[in-house]
Order: sequence, then structure tokens, then C-alpha cells
Amino acid sequence: MPVRAAVLAAYHQPLEIREYPEISHVGPGEVLVRMEMAGICGTDVHLWQGQLPIPVPVILGHETVGRIEALGDGVEVDWRGDPVSADDRITWASSLVCGECYYCRVKRQPTRCVARKAYGISYCADEAPHLRGGYAEAILLRPGTALYRLPDHLPTEAVVGAGCGLVTAIHGIERCPIEWGDVVVVQGSGPVGLAALAVAREAGAAKVVVIGGPPHRLEIARRFGADAVIDVGAVPDPEERHRVAQREISPHGADVVIECVGHPQAVNEGIALCRDGGAYLVLGQYADAGNIEFNPHIITRKQLRVIGSWGFEPRHVDKALALLARDKQVRDLFASEITHHFRLADADRALQTVRNWQSGKSVLIP
Amino acid sequence: MPVRAAVLAAYHQPLEIREYPEISHVGPGEVLVRMEMAGICGTDVHLWQGQLPIPVPVILGHETVGRIEALGDGVEVDWRGDPVSADDRITWASSLVCGECYYCRVKRQPTRCVARKAYGISYCADEAPHLRGGYAEAILLRPGTALYRLPDHLPTEAVVGAGCGLVTAIHGIERCPIEWGDVVVVQGSGPVGLAALAVAREAGAAKVVVIGGPPHRLEIARRFGADAVIDVGAVPDPEERHRVAQREISPHGADVVIECVGHPQAVNEGIALCRDGGAYLVLGQYADAGNIEFNPHIITRKQLRVIGSWGFEPRHVDKALALLARDKQVRDLFASEITHHFRLADADRALQTVRNWQSGKSVLIP
Amino acid sequence: MPVRAAVLAAYHQPLEIREYPEISHVGPGEVLVRMEMAGICGTDVHLWQGQLPIPVPVILGHETVGRIEALGDGVEVDWRGDPVSADDRITWASSLVCGECYYCRVKRQPTRCVARKAYGISYCADEAPHLRGGYAEAILLRPGTALYRLPDHLPTEAVVGAGCGLVTAIHGIERCPIEWGDVVVVQGSGPVGLAALAVAREAGAAKVVVIGGPPHRLEIARRFGADAVIDVGAVPDPEERHRVAQREISPHGADVVIECVGHPQAVNEGIALCRDGGAYLVLGQYADAGNIEFNPHIITRKQLRVIGSWGFEPRHVDKALALLARDKQVRDLFASEITHHFRLADADRALQTVRNWQSGKSVLIP
Amino acid sequence: MPVRAAVLAAYHQPLEIREYPEISHVGPGEVLVRMEMAGICGTDVHLWQGQLPIPVPVILGHETVGRIEALGDGVEVDWRGDPVSADDRITWASSLVCGECYYCRVKRQPTRCVARKAYGISYCADEAPHLRGGYAEAILLRPGTALYRLPDHLPTEAVVGAGCGLVTAIHGIERCPIEWGDVVVVQGSGPVGLAALAVAREAGAAKVVVIGGPPHRLEIARRFGADAVIDVGAVPDPEERHRVAQREISPHGADVVIECVGHPQAVNEGIALCRDGGAYLVLGQYADAGNIEFNPHIITRKQLRVIGSWGFEPRHVDKALALLARDKQVRDLFASEITHHFRLADADRALQTVRNWQSGKSVLIP
Repeated sequence: MPVRAAVLAAYHQPLEIREYPEISHVGPGEVLVRMEMAGICGTDVHLWQGQLPIPVPVILGHETVGRIEALGDGVEVDWRGDPVSADDRITWASSLVCGECYYCRVKRQPTRCVARKAYGISYCADEAPHLRGGYAEAILLRPGTALYRLPDHLPTEAVVGAGCGLVTAIHGIERCPIEWGDVVVVQGSGPVGLAALAVAREAGAAKVVVIGGPPHRLEIARRFGADAVIDVGAVPDPEERHRVAQREISPHGADVVIECVGHPQAVNEGIALCRDGGAYLVLGQYADAGNIEFNPHIITRKQLRVIGSWGFEPRHVDKALALLARDKQVRDLFASEITHHFRLADADRALQTVRNWQSGKSVLIP
Repeated sequence: MPVRAAVLAAYHQPLEIREYPEISHVGPGEVLVRMEMAGICGTDVHLWQGQLPIPVPVILGHETVGRIEALGDGVEVDWRGDPVSADDRITWASSLVCGECYYCRVKRQPTRCVARKAYGISYCADEAPHLRGGYAEAILLRPGTALYRLPDHLPTEAVVGAGCGLVTAIHGIERCPIEWGDVVVVQGSGPVGLAALAVAREAGAAKVVVIGGPPHRLEIARRFGADAVIDVGAVPDPEERHRVAQREISPHGADVVIECVGHPQAVNEGIALCRDGGAYLVLGQYADAGNIEFNPHIITRKQLRVIGSWGFEPRHVDKALALLARDKQVRDLFASEITHHFRLADADRALQTVRNWQSGKSVLIP
Repeated sequence: MPVRAAVLAAYHQPLEIREYPEISHVGPGEVLVRMEMAGICGTDVHLWQGQLPIPVPVILGHETVGRIEALGDGVEVDWRGDPVSADDRITWASSLVCGECYYCRVKRQPTRCVARKAYGISYCADEAPHLRGGYAEAILLRPGTALYRLPDHLPTEAVVGAGCGLVTAIHGIERCPIEWGDVVVVQGSGPVGLAALAVAREAGAAKVVVIGGPPHRLEIARRFGADAVIDVGAVPDPEERHRVAQREISPHGADVVIECVGHPQAVNEGIALCRDGGAYLVLGQYADAGNIEFNPHIITRKQLRVIGSWGFEPRHVDKALALLARDKQVRDLFASEITHHFRLADADRALQTVRNWQSGKSVLIP
Repeated sequence: MPVRAAVLAAYHQPLEIREYPEISHVGPGEVLVRMEMAGICGTDVHLWQGQLPIPVPVILGHETVGRIEALGDGVEVDWRGDPVSADDRITWASSLVCGECYYCRVKRQPTRCVARKAYGISYCADEAPHLRGGYAEAILLRPGTALYRLPDHLPTEAVVGAGCGLVTAIHGIERCPIEWGDVVVVQGSGPVGLAALAVAREAGAAKVVVIGGPPHRLEIARRFGADAVIDVGAVPDPEERHRVAQREISPHGADVVIECVGHPQAVNEGIALCRDGGAYLVLGQYADAGNIEFNPHIITRKQLRVIGSWGFEPRHVDKALALLARDKQVRDLFASEITHHFRLADADRALQTVRNWQSGKSVLIP
């Protein structure tokens, strides 16, 4: 029986439902997975808009949970060494690296592997075995993919609800550590912003202020533990916003400011909120959204650290799942981010709800 | 007998020689010093041009060596605890901090002390006791100034030749460490650039490439240990310069790039030369020289660390002097940076040689 | 009116109540404080037993809260820069350092200042002004003492209940950081152990196991957030204890183990519980309690970091007070550690309750 | 034609020359190498004495250079990605790790991989393909072994002369960094000690003092850049040695002390030489040589960091080879450590020269 998938065939065009041949052979190290749920990530909208160089047609979807249909030879354990077998519910790291290049080996920065490929992003759907994205009834995982068997008490909704935002935040805060007792500002209340807030809280931030919107997202931010929220809709003037934020943190500024917005203009606003000697984590500029006017004197004068972080490694997925598994409150919060469920056939409509900021988080149930 | 000093009375105007009353009383903790030599720093040119908010009239000069004329009550040892007495040759940290503010205490970033004042920069010469800068026959040091008695084998020329460039580089590289074996690019071959080169070599860089000019400065850079130099005059096109630099380092880029130029345009060129996951030290943007077009996406995508560093602390002066004291080759190199000696009366002419890039380093012998 | 104090005049002898002359003159920078509460620290028992070289007679007491009776000239703000005035309720850092020695200046390790002196420990009560310890109706604080005005909502009981254990734990964990998601073992459930547990939780430990006793202390540890507790009384065999602990953490061992016991034998047990590449924080060996048989091969083979931490700095007091001020649950827990209140006249009896492990925490109300 | 090898068949017994079947098939990923030179490491003596649990019979030899005889399918590049082909001269990392266990993956401590195996140490020579050690005419390298093609200007003598001491020192100093300007003491003047000295110099140590012997080794230490040497033979009393060392460093002690001795008694002597807040790197306790009397109070009171380091990773071999390739003086020094050359047939005699400290470094030329 053919396998159906929602395909981005051309930028800005509606996703199409296409059929691909059933996978008849699962090679050594491969894993065939029957999809249970795939999240619609904001990045998928950027991809749909052609803002990153990817092959088309492509089956989108990189936030995924499924059940093992078939295991290739040699796949007996997951990334943590726990046994896996058919019908286990799993998730997996969306990226695969070569492990051999200059970045993987010499510099231990595998997220910058020269051969890195991500499910739902980097694979042309025209090439066999076609099924390399999450918006589909099944996916064929390549040898070496980091798998994680999910414990029964960890719902699929929590894993997909946390999505790639949580692992991105974990990696970022690893690179730009929050010291116990720090005052933190998070710019943005999307999935990455809420995840950064959650991780900042976990890491011992004394106070976290979230600048974002719209109000229903800030309400979620409060539930995630924000000490204060600032609505960019209610305070549209950046200078006024700066004053309001300073009142919440301190006139000196915050120890760490985390950018999770994606608009390049956020950078100057965020750097202005750092205290001298503080740190600015640029987490949201995943897509190239253009230039800003920038004064590098501020880096020297305020003695700042400005830190970038790209993607994540399998060990960050492991940490994310461990957090969700041990903290009921956190996993319930991430699960509750999902507000809209769609069938695979309605993938394009699902994508549009995300594009139009109509949903919390939307997911596909193939 | 009155004390003569070269005074900046108005921006862009020639320095004037003025006379101030002799210091008749040295209070507790104060030290009266007879100047032996004062360096003309590039910053002095920026100050003369009015690029930083300072009081005028001001006696410039913050790179200084002198002999103790009189010690106030309670001054018995230098910063390292070694005894000091009249007629000792000393240097001193040009800045004084309060030790009590949020930055001094809570965040241990004393270079950002809210009450920090620097000799030769922050003191209005109209206010008694007037003598707070290096372009003068004498200076009265405030209680708490970090003094350093100079060993006999350490020439005044080496200390002033190293000047504030060396301590600035030491602080910067402390904040943005060079790992043993790193490939380093230094942008700029002025005093800070050469000092950064020297410290990078000391810190174990495997290779250091200097991008600067003019050729006579690059020749000094070679003597300071640069493995390769790129003359911005000979390779004026930034893209071509990028290719030339990549050939010297590697196509991946450098582990650490150190900006010691001061022109904001250098920042984009330098960041482009960092390898992914590398570090960019913004050391030269001491003055506010305006905005650049900047794309923050590069911080995220290349997973960079961009580090600022402002001024220095007394312990960096201690490290600088220890380096000069123990390494004859290094101190000879720094001493040889001094190419022009002027009398105090010719201070304005001395400043103009620096402004016009006519000299290596110019000094005043009051 | 003379001031009464409880004095340790000779090791192992009952504390004596003595009277000292009223402080008639408060010099510049000094602060005269009317004591409100002084904690009996386990260290006081060690001092009473003569295990550290201190002068006698001495007024013990270094965990203290009082009200300002008189401010010397120049004392207008507390350590954070907030204004202080007569009758304000304050606490203070028990140690004073010189700020000028090799450790204060060059190496930035002020806790190892060569001239460090602590109230309640280092001052001979025979020498004027006598009042330099907490077991007294009043104390005269030296110029430069770090003061902290207490907000009204922060009860004295919470500050003294947290005592020097909390600041010691904060400094230790600063030197041996707990990474978000770490598995931590705390050896010891005394004041330092509970504080280490509290800070480990704050700093994002995924799991904290406490090994200690007796059961009522472990019950408090549970309330402080311990995921599991192991009663050394119930599991007296170290090898069995090791197996029980491994079941709670993992066969690999813990990421960080924190020693808060004080018996040197705890060290081998704790190191055995570290995972390879993990860290062991030796926090409890404040007194010299003798040698152990130790095999240094384990440091190399397990690739460990073994970290020591001595005392604390004023900024750690600031962090401790900030934690107590912002987290009601934590301050209530620390306040609830105080189980016994004594009048000054009963100081010796108070000390004996601590010595005999009869109390949670005992305090004096002068 | 059979392949000859020197085999340790029983502890404390002379090495035997045995013959093994020629390797007729080189499998995928494997590399067959004709040995050019194998160093006799001090560890080989420990293995011969049965101080570590290894299988016997075993072909010793883990410091090796050879020429490629045959490449298995898929081996086209070395660890750095440079092409390799038959007859290339190469060296290789002696250990192979699984890349999948808790230590390899989750904790990124691959030197503690649960499945780590080292050529010349961990392979029973009775098991096919037998040739897994350096004291042989050939070795068959397993798939995944980190290979390094040697540039023509880098002599075999320098690579084997540096041996595993250099990579061990590089890993150790990575874990316990030497800050530019540090004062360092190295305990031991064997291969690890000299390598630690070389790396400490490279990393910017201001002063390095070596405590070791006999005099001819200290003479080499001077050539390697030691500022001072202390002969344990000439100063046999530990307390006197402590005083002599303090005179060379400072009464405060050294910033970093590196133990490269192997006798556990060295640990107390070394820790006593650390300044407060300094670091002690335990690099030499590779074998379990028994217990010492140790007082853990010193860790707390001196606020020390005691750091262990085990073995090395391929990236450390890469750094070692890069150092040798770029610095003629350093590679000549390491090459000159080799004082005795033996034929394979004389392997036992070679081992005895090392055991009896008769040689600088001994090597086998098969």
C-alpha cells in the first residue's frame, strides 16, 4: 500500500498530498517508523516561504513521534543504550552528522558538520526512499539516527509540544550558561522563547522577564514561570519598552538576555537590556532575515559576550526528554501548547494556522 | 616653582603649555611623581578630536613612568606589596575605581565601575590639584592608585612602549582565551594589535596572521612573531583580503580573530574570518565610531562567541610588567616601538605625528 | 551600662558570662549593633574543642542579626549601596579581608586573604573594644564590614537559620558548578548539607540524593527537595550504602558529589560515588580532623575534579539573602531549622545541645 | 611469510619472539601496517610487572610509526581527512572507543569508554588476527582507528620520541588549563614530565620548575625550557625539597603543579607546593601503586582544584603532531630523547634498559 505524505513542491504554494511506494526493505541500521504525530514548526513556514536553501519537493516535518514498524539489522538499542523493538513509541534527533569532518572531530561542533542533514528539511522527496520527513504516514530513518524510546508516562503531546524549541534552548543555554541567581530577559514568547524561559527557570534564574505577545502567549509564559511579561502590542515603542523592562529587571540591565524572536531588529533592543559584562544569546536568528544598523562600540564598551547557537546535538534531545520525563508540570505545560490537531490531508491548512499566528502549536495526526 | 603641563583646552586645537602651582602638600595615600616619560596613545588623538565625552581643559597622558618625589602617609608598598620609597622609578594603573559599586562588588567587573576615572582623561585641569595627567612635569596620584616599582633591568622605554596596548590586550585575551594550538588572526598592527599578537604568541597560538599596515608596522609585526602578514594597502579589496587570509589560515577560518582596528567596518571582515564555533574579540572599538550594516544571522549560524573587553584592571598591569621583566626579547621589541622622542614643549607636534601615522610610537620627555 | 557576652575562656570549659565596657565612641566606618539573634554553628563546637587555632578568651558567634545602634562617620549605605540608618535590622559578612594582599589582589581568592579575620572566631575578647562576637548583647563592627539591611518580609529566623551553611554552599557550588540536569549526591544532612541540597535544587539538579541522618534531619532534607535520602544509621555498612546509593543515582555514579560531613572518612565514600569525569566538592573539611588512607590512582583513572572551597565572600551573602528574600518556601524551610531558643545567660547549654546533636539549630536571643 | 613479534607471555618473564600467520585479507576499514619503529613506554614495564589487568600473551607496543602495506575498503583518508594510500608513513591513536556508550555519548568523556581497547595493551595475542601490538613486524589496525599521515619533514624519531607522553600531557593540560603567566611545577622528568614541561611552556607558563632526576634527565629538562630544576637525588629530604622549590617559585606556591611521577607519595609533596586556590593535575597515577596517608582538610583549606586525566583522544594526537610539525626545536628535542635503538629480536633487552632507567628512551626497529 502506498504511503501518503504532504509535500512542499514549490515555495509559497499549497502543500500537496502525494503517494510514495511502500518501503519493502529496511536495510542494516535503518528504522521504519509509522508516524503518530508531527508538529508544525515556525521554521516550516520559513521553509515554505523559501527563506532557506532546501531541495524541493520536500516532505516537511522535523518534530515527530512514531512507532517502530521495522528495525534494520543491528538496531537493538536506542541512543541511550536502552533496548528497542517493534511497536515501541519513539522520537528521534532530526539531524544526522558525519562524525568525521573538521567540525565533528577536531572542533567538536557537530551542529556545524559539513554534511549535516535534517529530516523534514534536507531531503528531496523525489529521491528514493522518499520518506524522509514528518508530514507523512511513515518515515525511513537512516543508519546512525539517534532514537529515543519514550516511557509510557511521557505523552506524545508533550514531546511534540516541546518540539525543536526545547532542544534549541537547551543547546543555547549550554553555550551561554545562566548562573544560579541571574536575572534573565527572554525576547519572544513563541515555542523557542517559552522553552528558553523553562530552561532558564530550571537553571536557577532568580527572575525571568518575557517580552513578547500576543497576550495569550504571555499568559502561557506566566504559567511557565515568567516573573513578569511585557506585551509588545501594548508597548509598541522600543524606548518605552526599554524603560518598562528596566523597571522589571534593574537599571543596570539583565545578566543574560535571550533572543528568541527572529526579527533582526530585536538584537539592538536586546543588547541594550544587557548589563555591562553580561551576555546576549542570539538564538532566534535561524533564518537570514536581513541586516540591521549596528554599533560595535557597544560590545567593547559594555564588555559583552554575544553568543550564537545553531541547532542541537542528540545529547540535548536526551536532556529534553529527561526533563519532560521527570517533571510533570513542565511536560503538561509543553503538551498544552498544542491547540490545533489536523489530519495529514489538511497539512496545508495546518501550516497556514501557524503562518497566521492563529494557533498555539498545530500538529498533524497522519 | 610652577609645574608645566601640555593641556588640551579645546578639541581640535593645538595643545597649550600651561603652568600650575607646585604641589606643596602630599596628603595621606597620595604620591607625587616627577614624570620621566609619557607615551602618546592613539586614544589621545581620539580625545583631541572630541570623540569621547571628557572635561576640558585636560592634561592628557595615561602611559607613564616617573620617579617618586614624595609619598603621602601610609604609602609604603606598591600594588604587589613591595616597598616603595622616594626616588623609586614607578609606573601606575591609569584608572581608579570605587571598589563599592554594583560593578566593582556584585559583578566583579571593575572596569565598568560607575565612578571610574583615568589619569590623562577624566580630570579637569582647572580643578586643584590640577596635575592628573601624564603630559606634565609632575603628577599627583590619588590614594588607592595602583603603583608598580620598576626593576632596574626593565627600561622605561619598554614600559611606555608597551603602553596601554599591552594591558588592554591582556585583559581582552583573558576574557576571550586563546587555547594552546589555536589559529589566530589579528586585525590591526597598531600598538594594540602588536600587543595582541605578542600575547597570543605567549598564550600558545599555533599561528598568528596579522592584517594591517603600513608595511613598516607589518615588519614590526613579523619581528613580534607574526607567521604571516597581510598589507591592507597592498590588498585593498576586502573580498580579496578574505581570500588571501583564508589561504594563510584555513578555509574553515580562524579559531580566534582579534579586532584591534577601531574602524567599525573591520567587524564584518573579522567575523567572516572566524571559523564556525570560533570567537571574535572586539578590542578596538574603544571610541564610538558609528554604525555598520550587520547581519545577526551570522552569529547564530556560525555559532560564534563575540566578546568585548573594556580597559584593564591593576592585575593586568602586573601581568604586563611581569612579562616585560622576564622576557628580554619582548621588552626590546616593545621598547623599539618608540621611534620619536619630544620635549614637553613640543607636545602638540608629538600628537600630530601620531595623528598622521608618521611615527611608530611617540613619547614626551618632560 | 556594661555589655554582657558569653565567652569561651578555655577549651572544653563552660562558656562564661562576662561584662565589657559600653562602647562610648563609634569611630569612622564602624557600626555598633544591638544583637537580636545569634546562631550556634557546628563550627563553634569545633572551636570549643580547640580544633582550630584561635585566641582565647573569645566571644563566639558568627551567624548574626541585629539592629543598628550607632553608625560611624561615613557609613551611609550597606554593601549593596542601599541606605542604612539607626535602628535598621541588618546582618553582616562575618569575615573581613585586607583587599591588598597577594590572594585578595593578584589571585582574586579573598577567602584566603592572609589577614582575614572573622567575628566570633579571630578576636581576643581581652582586647578593646572586646565586642567582636555574636554571643553578646552588642557587637562593634569594623570599618569595611559588609552590611546588609534586611527587608521587612525576611525574618531574622530565616537569616540565622540559613546561617553560614548557606553562604558556604553557595561559594562551594560556584567553584564546582552544578550543570542543569546533573545528578547530585549530598553527603551530610547538617546545616551545610541542607543548604547544599537547596542550592543544588536551585541550580537545576535533576536529582539530589542525601546521605545523612538522623531520621529527623532526613525528613527535613525531604522537605528541602531531596529526591531520595539514605540514613547512615539504618545502613551503617559503607559498601552496602554504596550499593543503595548507586540504585538511587545510577551505576555510573553521580555527576557531582558534595561532601558536607566533616569526617575525613566521608571522602573515600564520596569519591567512589562520582561518575568518571565527575566532580567532588570537599566542603565539609573545614577543621583538620586527621588523615585517611587514600589512593590517588582513582583521581587519574576516574578522571575526576576534586574541588575545595573555603568560607565565602560578601557577594555570596548577597546571593543568599536574595534567595531568602525571593523564595518564601526556602526561607520558611531555613527558618524552621531553628528548633531551640536560648537566652544569652544559657549560652553554654545552647552550645551543648548542638554538640550533642539534640537540636535542629539552636540560637541565642540576647 | 610469517610475521614475527615480541610477546609478553607471562608477567616478569623475558619477552619471547613468536611468529604469527601473515595477514592475507584486509577487511573493510582495516589497515595493515609494516612497523617502522615502536617505542618502549614506561607503562610497558608496569604491564610486564603485572600492575594492570591485561590479557596475556600480549604483543606490547603502543607508541608506533609504520608504513601502510594495505588499505581495507573504505579507508581513503586519515583522521584529518587527508588522503592516505599504500606506502604512506603513518602513526595512529593507540586506543579505540565505541562511540556509543554513556561516556562516549552522554558525558563526552570517551577516554572512559566502557569498551575502550588499546593496541599493545588490551588484545590477547592468541586470538586472530594476533597482530595488535607495536613490538612486531606488522600490525593490523581495526576499522575506525584514527590514522595520521606524517609529513615528510616530521621524522619518525620525533613522533615515537614524543610518544604517549606528549598526548597524555596535552589532554591533562586541557583538563587543567595553564593560564598565560602561571608559575608551574612539574614533578617528574620522565617522558610525561618532559612533555608536560613542553606543553606548559607552549601554553604560556611564566616559569616552570621541574623536580626530578637523574641529572641527565634534568639536563634534558633544561633544554626543554625548564627555568629551574631540582634533583631529587641531590635533595632527598622532602621538607628540604619543599623549601628549595619554594625559593624557586614563591612562598605562596605554584599556580599549577603537575604530577608526572607515578609514585603515590608524590601527591602530598605536590599538593603542598600549590598556592591556595591553585590546581594540582594528577597525571602520573596511571597504575594503581597503592595508598597514601592523606589529609582532605588541605583541599578545603587551600581551596584547591585537584584534577585527573586519563589517556587521550584522537584530537590530542592531532594537536601533538601539529606541534611537532610546526616547531623544529620541539621535535628535535623529542627526537633526541631516543638514546637506544634495538632490533625486534632484542625486545626484552630493550625493555630491561627502560626498567633499569639506563636509557633516555629506547625504541625497536623491527
